[in-house]
Amino acid sequence: MSKADGTKAETLKPRLPRGFLDRRADELAAQARMLETIRSTFELYGFEALETPFVEYTEALGKFLPDLDRPNEGVFSFQDDDESWLSLRYDLTAPLARFVAENFDALPKPYRSFRAGYVFRNEKPGPGRFRQFMQFDADIVGAASVAADAETCMLMADTLDRLGLAGQYVVKVNNRKVLDGVLEACGLAGDDKAGQRLTALRAIDKLDRLGVEGVRLLLGPGRKDESGDFTKGAGLADAAIDRIVAYVSFQAAPSDGGDRLAFWESFFGSWHDVVGNSEIGREGIAELHAIMRLCAAGGYESDRIRPDPSVVRGLEYYTGPVYEADLTFSVKNADGQPIRIGAIASGGRYDGLVGRFRTEPVPATGFSVGVSRLFSALQLVKSPLLDGAEKPGPVVVLVLDRENVADYQRLVAALRAENIRAELYLGGAGMKAQMKYADRRRAPVAIIQGSNERAAGEVQVKDLIAGAEAARSIASNAEWKAARPAQFSCPEAEMVARVREVLGRHFSGTTG
Amino acid sequence: MSKADGTKAETLKPRLPRGFLDRRADELAAQARMLETIRSTFELYGFEALETPFVEYTEALGKFLPDLDRPNEGVFSFQDDDESWLSLRYDLTAPLARFVAENFDALPKPYRSFRAGYVFRNEKPGPGRFRQFMQFDADIVGAASVAADAETCMLMADTLDRLGLAGQYVVKVNNRKVLDGVLEACGLAGDDKAGQRLTALRAIDKLDRLGVEGVRLLLGPGRKDESGDFTKGAGLADAAIDRIVAYVSFQAAPSDGGDRLAFWESFFGSWHDVVGNSEIGREGIAELHAIMRLCAAGGYESDRIRPDPSVVRGLEYYTGPVYEADLTFSVKNADGQPIRIGAIASGGRYDGLVGRFRTEPVPATGFSVGVSRLFSALQLVKSPLLDGAEKPGPVVVLVLDRENVADYQRLVAALRAENIRAELYLGGAGMKAQMKYADRRRAPVAIIQGSNERAAGEVQVKDLIAGAEAARSIASNAEWKAARPAQFSCPEAEMVARVREVLGRHFSGTTG
Repeated sequence: MSKADGTKAETLKPRLPRGFLDRRADELAAQARMLETIRSTFELYGFEALETPFVEYTEALGKFLPDLDRPNEGVFSFQDDDESWLSLRYDLTAPLARFVAENFDALPKPYRSFRAGYVFRNEKPGPGRFRQFMQFDADIVGAASVAADAETCMLMADTLDRLGLAGQYVVKVNNRKVLDGVLEACGLAGDDKAGQRLTALRAIDKLDRLGVEGVRLLLGPGRKDESGDFTKGAGLADAAIDRIVAYVSFQAAPSDGGDRLAFWESFFGSWHDVVGNSEIGREGIAELHAIMRLCAAGGYESDRIRPDPSVVRGLEYYTGPVYEADLTFSVKNADGQPIRIGAIASGGRYDGLVGRFRTEPVPATGFSVGVSRLFSALQLVKSPLLDGAEKPGPVVVLVLDRENVADYQRLVAALRAENIRAELYLGGAGMKAQMKYADRRRAPVAIIQGSNERAAGEVQVKDLIAGAEAARSIASNAEWKAARPAQFSCPEAEMVARVREVLGRHFSGTTG
Repeated sequence: MSKADGTKAETLKPRLPRGFLDRRADELAAQARMLETIRSTFELYGFEALETPFVEYTEALGKFLPDLDRPNEGVFSFQDDDESWLSLRYDLTAPLARFVAENFDALPKPYRSFRAGYVFRNEKPGPGRFRQFMQFDADIVGAASVAADAETCMLMADTLDRLGLAGQYVVKVNNRKVLDGVLEACGLAGDDKAGQRLTALRAIDKLDRLGVEGVRLLLGPGRKDESGDFTKGAGLADAAIDRIVAYVSFQAAPSDGGDRLAFWESFFGSWHDVVGNSEIGREGIAELHAIMRLCAAGGYESDRIRPDPSVVRGLEYYTGPVYEADLTFSVKNADGQPIRIGAIASGGRYDGLVGRFRTEPVPATGFSVGVSRLFSALQLVKSPLLDGAEKPGPVVVLVLDRENVADYQRLVAALRAENIRAELYLGGAGMKAQMKYADRRRAPVAIIQGSNERAAGEVQVKDLIAGAEAARSIASNAEWKAARPAQFSCPEAEMVARVREVLGRHFSGTTG
């Protein structure tokens, strides 16, 4: 870059902005297998692919700051020529709502779609928090029935099963209407209680971390943590606190393998007390019960999908059922510290989102898989799905005699013509460095042709995998040289067949 | 969105910014097959995957306006918290240069990588011109030898062959050094002649469109086009014009099937005159000749890869060989007008780009496939690669009796458990609308269970493909009802097997 004064700038430092990552071949190959498993499971459920662009009108994303004419700081935004604001998408749901509203008449309804891709957050990056990360979403638009919510919960469970996580997750389901009903029964209805309701919901959301006693304090006078910091509570009376605690204590036991419908009948029997006469609360319980009945009919036990009253998600967003998939095992990081992975997929019903663009309401439900977090989880459990990522490299044809590079090119072309991955060494280094290069590329075979071989119409085929194995068992360099393991010469015309033999020995199948 | 004054805004118009597109399932599936063909060909040549993020420092992209402290208008840019400028990548080469410089010691050298992904241009969109579009690049960094340029030209040719375009393209190769040599021999060397050189190069670039006489005018006094607009010429003397025209007339005939090395020897024999004593010109001819010798050794005839003196690309960017793949057939659009598709892949040697970040020079060469343009071309030639895009939809289980939706859910689960794509109808409509939905989803089979069937423990299996065929051959509605084609009932327990039978009949294989 030249500066304004015409002097050449100093050498640029090559670096990425914070919160962005490069990815190399092994990681991309492992991630592709994971994404393919998710995709095929979503398709099994009748969902079809959709791709929307990375850029949308900021107002279509609903991301203007409340009192300002400029976009929310959480999104990357820039102005178009006509001064309208554009933003990089920050999730895959808002673009779906725009797409459905724009193409409403052309779509089958209900419309089941999946979308995979990067989203962007203009936030402070940190460990495990990136400014570009991948989501994989499945949504059903145009279905008001809770059967749609049940489908998405079952899809979450089946996806995790097929990713090899069977028995290691639970899909937790709740309903915003039940939460509202409980709060209504606590006397927290009405616009003037909105702040208190929010504090109470945030307290419930902390059940996993703080336990019942911690939640009690946050619902009441407040709580001092270990560091001495005080969090102000919701200031509820004891009766209200008791009611909420009774509610969050409704945790489903593992189903007993008997009649699943009776199991849920009995489980929900006692819920009605906590919502009292709240109509919305009773509606919410009925919906939750219906979801569990549908999951039971589909063969899903409570160890895979179950109600969890402590699930509180997206307060300003979801309008009914909410759900998340949590991993149930704990893992340790490199330092031996236990790590909580948390929810790796989550979603719910958002009946208001498409309606921003249309006069009639359009019901919708769906979830989002956090691809990066899921990938880390699969790495931590050493998932076989990620194994075999290290694909062998190409056959490398060495160049011993740069005058005759066209002859080496001919050997490479012969291998490629038979669909054997191959390349010509294109650097300027000698024999030893070329072998090191082949090693670094994980080449299974090197082809070597010196002037003697060329004169005789032959090539040396060096089996680098057998060679590496032999090297581990041969003690001295002299012994190694004497053995010349796994290297043989053959006529040029036989090269392809002999290379194929060697590859077949190591990979029993394709090499492409 | 709420406005600052608290009133609810009017219903938003759902729309995309100009120059951005949504893509639905059929197009995505066809494009995925095309990308997979490109990827596997690049891997056959030993290239490995790399992915860089969408956002880079603007200065890493080299996209600051020459005399200003803000970025070029051609890129989408925004400021980070620390006021540094970030931009969306506008190609896949500048990010590669940054990546290689940042990870230099960790990479095998030469480093062969491919990258596929969207790039962004903040330009006025038009027909076929988008602000987000996909490129698929292959590059070799760290190889100074023209053997690397020959490899990339052969890779271009093989990629197009494997995409089903054999015999319908030509890879044209030129060398910036030859161009420089010809201009030097015309007396256009030196910094003070830079403007005249540029005008001359732009004239050469128009050979395809204007023919020799048009180029002559642009090299000399100037040219008036059909509309009467006058383009000022380079103002060269007749001798210089003759020299350049002699040069651009060096078009290779189809090779005669004889000795390819002798063919190129003879072809290049007469080139030296046009560069006179220019050292850079002679070096360029030698390089071009070497590339053609290597391609000949690899078995590529002049109808696939050949020199073309009129190829002038990326004047401020490329430092040696330049190449592009052009389609040789002409197509007509929907209105019967002939369309020139032009170059669908192009590239060259850019030895200066990585060097922006490092003190030592790092040679590099590579090319970029214009994915969207290639996709349009494949559509225009009705490529079989894009056929079969219309994958059948899922089996749809109708819901005739909403009270018993759990029973229908059980049927869906049974199909999915056997890996048959299936879904529950989740809308609120009646039988007729549900059949219309199944049709719109391209469902091969509908499962129907009314109260009579349920009582008898049976389901109706409706073969929608056979049904549609029969409907075409049955004249009257009455006849149609009497035939009830392709529908039968079976016990619930046999449903999966019978559905599999029907699917096997139509798709002879997988259904997932």
